[in-house]
Amino acid sequence: MTIEPAVGISLLNEANDLPEPLQRALNTVEGVMYNVVNSDVTVLRDASRHILEAGGKRIRPRLTLLSFAAVGGQDFEEVAQVAAAVELVHTASVVHDDINDHGIIRRGRPSVNSIWGRTFALLTGDYLFTKVYELMAPHRDLNIILSEATTALVEGETLQASAVKENNFSRKIYLDIIARKTAALFRAGAQLGATLGGGTSEQIEALGQFGYNIGLAFQMIDDVLDIVGTPEQLGKTAGIDIEQGRGFAVAYNGDNGSENGDPMETIKQKVLRGDTIQEAYQQAKNLVQLGIAHLSVLPDSEAKTALIQLAESVVERSY
Amino acid sequence: MTIEPAVGISLLNEANDLPEPLQRALNTVEGVMYNVVNSDVTVLRDASRHILEAGGKRIRPRLTLLSFAAVGGQDFEEVAQVAAAVELVHTASVVHDDINDHGIIRRGRPSVNSIWGRTFALLTGDYLFTKVYELMAPHRDLNIILSEATTALVEGETLQASAVKENNFSRKIYLDIIARKTAALFRAGAQLGATLGGGTSEQIEALGQFGYNIGLAFQMIDDVLDIVGTPEQLGKTAGIDIEQGRGFAVAYNGDNGSENGDPMETIKQKVLRGDTIQEAYQQAKNLVQLGIAHLSVLPDSEAKTALIQLAESVVERSY
Repeated sequence: MTIEPAVGISLLNEANDLPEPLQRALNTVEGVMYNVVNSDVTVLRDASRHILEAGGKRIRPRLTLLSFAAVGGQDFEEVAQVAAAVELVHTASVVHDDINDHGIIRRGRPSVNSIWGRTFALLTGDYLFTKVYELMAPHRDLNIILSEATTALVEGETLQASAVKENNFSRKIYLDIIARKTAALFRAGAQLGATLGGGTSEQIEALGQFGYNIGLAFQMIDDVLDIVGTPEQLGKTAGIDIEQGRGFAVAYNGDNGSENGDPMETIKQKVLRGDTIQEAYQQAKNLVQLGIAHLSVLPDSEAKTALIQLAESVVERSY
Repeated sequence: MTIEPAVGISLLNEANDLPEPLQRALNTVEGVMYNVVNSDVTVLRDASRHILEAGGKRIRPRLTLLSFAAVGGQDFEEVAQVAAAVELVHTASVVHDDINDHGIIRRGRPSVNSIWGRTFALLTGDYLFTKVYELMAPHRDLNIILSEATTALVEGETLQASAVKENNFSRKIYLDIIARKTAALFRAGAQLGATLGGGTSEQIEALGQFGYNIGLAFQMIDDVLDIVGTPEQLGKTAGIDIEQGRGFAVAYNGDNGSENGDPMETIKQKVLRGDTIQEAYQQAKNLVQLGIAHLSVLPDSEAKTALIQLAESVVERSY
């Protein structure tokens, strides 16, 4: 099967099609993240800015900002701080993930791990987590939402490492992993935006469900691309991220390929021969539609349209 | 020189001499920590409880509880949550520290790292950090105090790793390292307790200074013991924690011993032959007296007496 050209790339990479105030807010988020990692300890500042400057899809802060706007939020100053915190949770986890997975490329650049070594990468990840905490300090109730999602993320990463170690992947386990490590933070990001924007509890719940389903779809596609993509396309080490790729591949292939000691290449060939990818795409598309359906409680707006485009772009990207 | 028998051990280890409500509060802190690491992900729960059950001196939560009581705080319920968060920051850093230092014994038990391996130790440390964040979520202003101290701690660990890597230790650098990695959290712990206890800004400041000075003294003695103590006495891997021990030894020995490629044993012998240890003890004792002097703004109380005893015990322990 051929992966279709990614019509959604521009949506995920550039934000030219975002309403103007949202584009400005997204720039503010970048500034907040850059400025908050201002340690006088050079390696922490440099390594943090290295990973931040590498960019990334920024899908989580977009979700937070758009959720804010979609419920009628106007002044983006406060929500930009919170959206930055959400992205920093993800960034910290990426830095630690590259230690555990020995990832050498991330976002098209050498990983923090590969430049500064394991010790400093571990400390840089810790530093980014402390900055989340600092950014969120003024937000009493919101802290509970983000701390729960951060805990879920760490749990998801741990379940994944356990599944690899115990050679025990099933679809159920795979879904539990991606629900915690990815979908929980997407949900929190949307809920945080909607809460700050003054949404009703129905709207906050709906946007949380939207985020959750989009998050599941996003991770599934990420894992498919991890198997079929090249490092150049992915901007990160493909195949080497075997925990992730193998988990998906084994879970969706039905047979526990790794039990046979199959190397990643064999699993990849199996996946490419079968209907696995098509099936995963279909499931991801269904999740996206499910997510979009939750938006029916929102009034029409530019932000709502942009949320729908964001959701659709999740399954229409090639990296 | 001989290290005197540790008259302060019982103070640091058992709390029999604490006023009764404080003893109960300390038990509550243990319960809060134990109960908050309640993940359904077995390895995170087990590894977290493994390190918590190993005990430890609990000097930081004592400082928080005593500071609370010393300014007239009465109901220990809220402060126990915060004291637990302070101790969890330390616990998380210890778990990550043992990864970077390859520590195999901690608090008289195998380290998380040595039982569960690096990947799970990294994730357990992250998990403990997320639990700090969760426990502190309801405390708006207090979050700023603790998040700053947590950032300082990570910065101190990073400076230490950099100094080891660049073979560049001086007393100035050594003091900067221990100020950030240890004294900042001691100060925050005292400030948090005093703030929750309803202390005046003068009292909060004074207790912060008390904590800071005690923290410096505590770390200096810790580093001395790391060189002269045995693993049995220390309950952790001695000598192997070379970053710490070497930093102190080199900084206080005057010559940059490691420049000569001296192994740890040679540095240790140099330290034992010279006045280094005596000098460090004298400096630590001065810091303790400086700390205690700050307490003059507090009315006499059982808690104040216990704070003074706690301070004195810092330089009177043998592990």
